[in-house]
Amino acid sequence: MKVNKKDYSTIWFENNKIKIIDQTKLPFKFEIKELKSLQSFVSAIKKMEVRGAPLIGVTAAYGLAFEILREPSRSNIFKTYKKLFNCRPTAINLRWALDEVINTVLKIPPKKRGKESLKIANKIRNDDIKSCKQIGKNGLKIIQNIYKKKKRCINILTHCNAGWLATVDWGTALAPIFFAKRKKIPIHIWVDETRPRNQGALLTSWELKNENIPHTVIVDNAGGHLMQNKEVDMCLVGSDRTTISGNVCNKIGTYLKAVVAYENKIPFFVALPTSTIDKKIKKISDIPIEIRDGSELSKVNLKIKNKLLSANIFEKETPTLNPAFDVTPKKFITKLITEKGICDPNEEKIKRLLRN
Amino acid sequence: MKVNKKDYSTIWFENNKIKIIDQTKLPFKFEIKELKSLQSFVSAIKKMEVRGAPLIGVTAAYGLAFEILREPSRSNIFKTYKKLFNCRPTAINLRWALDEVINTVLKIPPKKRGKESLKIANKIRNDDIKSCKQIGKNGLKIIQNIYKKKKRCINILTHCNAGWLATVDWGTALAPIFFAKRKKIPIHIWVDETRPRNQGALLTSWELKNENIPHTVIVDNAGGHLMQNKEVDMCLVGSDRTTISGNVCNKIGTYLKAVVAYENKIPFFVALPTSTIDKKIKKISDIPIEIRDGSELSKVNLKIKNKLLSANIFEKETPTLNPAFDVTPKKFITKLITEKGICDPNEEKIKRLLRN
Repeated sequence: MKVNKKDYSTIWFENNKIKIIDQTKLPFKFEIKELKSLQSFVSAIKKMEVRGAPLIGVTAAYGLAFEILREPSRSNIFKTYKKLFNCRPTAINLRWALDEVINTVLKIPPKKRGKESLKIANKIRNDDIKSCKQIGKNGLKIIQNIYKKKKRCINILTHCNAGWLATVDWGTALAPIFFAKRKKIPIHIWVDETRPRNQGALLTSWELKNENIPHTVIVDNAGGHLMQNKEVDMCLVGSDRTTISGNVCNKIGTYLKAVVAYENKIPFFVALPTSTIDKKIKKISDIPIEIRDGSELSKVNLKIKNKLLSANIFEKETPTLNPAFDVTPKKFITKLITEKGICDPNEEKIKRLLRN
Repeated sequence: MKVNKKDYSTIWFENNKIKIIDQTKLPFKFEIKELKSLQSFVSAIKKMEVRGAPLIGVTAAYGLAFEILREPSRSNIFKTYKKLFNCRPTAINLRWALDEVINTVLKIPPKKRGKESLKIANKIRNDDIKSCKQIGKNGLKIIQNIYKKKKRCINILTHCNAGWLATVDWGTALAPIFFAKRKKIPIHIWVDETRPRNQGALLTSWELKNENIPHTVIVDNAGGHLMQNKEVDMCLVGSDRTTISGNVCNKIGTYLKAVVAYENKIPFFVALPTSTIDKKIKKISDIPIEIRDGSELSKVNLKIKNKLLSANIFEKETPTLNPAFDVTPKKFITKLITEKGICDPNEEKIKRLLRN
């Protein structure tokens, strides 16, 4: 998507170098960074310089390829797999993307593995762009249908950032919104601030501003009030892991919004590439929920006199707990929007969809 | 309550001076401030140096008394009433306390009005302390009952600050918690950060720390996840305005928690002095919801190298909306805890309670 009128994606391979946009600096600073070692891939994922389930997957695939190019032994492949896999426990794309690489390269001779793994990583990247574009087109139909009924500006509430910054390009939840804008459907986006990392206020609002899409940032607390007062026509969020039975694990706070949308009869949509579907896990409680450092609550980034600083907004000794994700049971989800089509959140329908 | 081992209340009359704790500086700085002019009362309420429905009421009563002492004419009384009334539209105690003063003083000769209005303001202050203490004792029974059943540490989720800082002393939602602590019931408090003003992270956690009550600050997004995972035994919040039919208007985000508590069969209690009951309003949509300045979202107070600063955590040009309260329909409320007793949230029961 466009940044200062130039097209960018979040990760790319150029002149034998892997480059990313450092998302911890956005929107204050637009900085491109080269990932030069396995450690830099690990750190980029852990520190959330790259974030969003699809983008984490693509970055991990490149990280594994990068390391296989250097040293293609079976033992190094497994060691690297483990290191990357352990970076973040919840997003399932991470495992999926790593599996895509090793399932192929382990079957071929070591000297061919490097080139092949890079080819696979590139393919995962390009497929992600295609998937997101198709999610956009599929989700557009839903926005169009609501617009046909309401015949006025459609208010969409989104949580966290599931835009192009969470993928390689286009995004998941924001892709239908970008398409609706291109189709000139009048839309307005309620952007949940999304504490503790403020991805809504920092990243989603930046993406929407760059695309000239009307939007308003609200605190995470405000969405219920807006839904109760009919200021929200639909909710649209992403997913970090979707169980085969249709439950969705996404950024902490998604569950609160889904339950209250259901209470107010507001449709709640989840946009996801099918690579976030976990075919193994059925029970919600089996999904590992990442507990991140509590300092993420008290410590914020800010700009004072054009300098980027971090500071504490409350006493850092205050005890905190920081679960990064929650699970929304399928009962509260209207439809899943995937690259393969729109689908009810139930096992039979999802399995049928995956066979397409 | 104790601050550095000394007893304080939030507002007091001493040597002909009205003094408050400036809550915008807490917990970084404990600063006592004298209110010396009507403008300083207005500004203290608007800027939230004093906040919380009961404390706003007491402050307004003192503000009106202060001005009547200076100039007791009918026209000045009405002008001052209007000025104070318009400071914050949602908390009903503000109107209630001002009415308590003028209903009496307008009936007596001007030269007696000053002394009398100060007497009433002092009485409102002292009654608030008594009320809160009684709310504490009444609410304690609920915590005791839950403890009798569960026989382990009771996890209580609270939103915003309804502690002693929101009243003159003791608090509303926190009063039963302070009493439970004195009764040695094992409790642990989940403290919602409460964006945008962070009253949970700043004030509630400070109060609980001062009283040695175990607590953990969480982002507002996390409560749903904790309830779903049975980490919350009860919710306990305050109220800025309670309709005679039992609906509760409280800090933005309360509604989200109440709906999700209901979904998870977790009891949801609201603690309030009966002065927050609005006998006139029946329809939820008639409650005026204060929309505060959007800069409260992007601008935060923080301490850098022991200096108190304010800075932007996201671009201040970002469009924002900042509704300060929401309404929780009675359906989601288990019981109201008042100084007159515990009560179901329905009109008949509330009216009977008020006759006590």
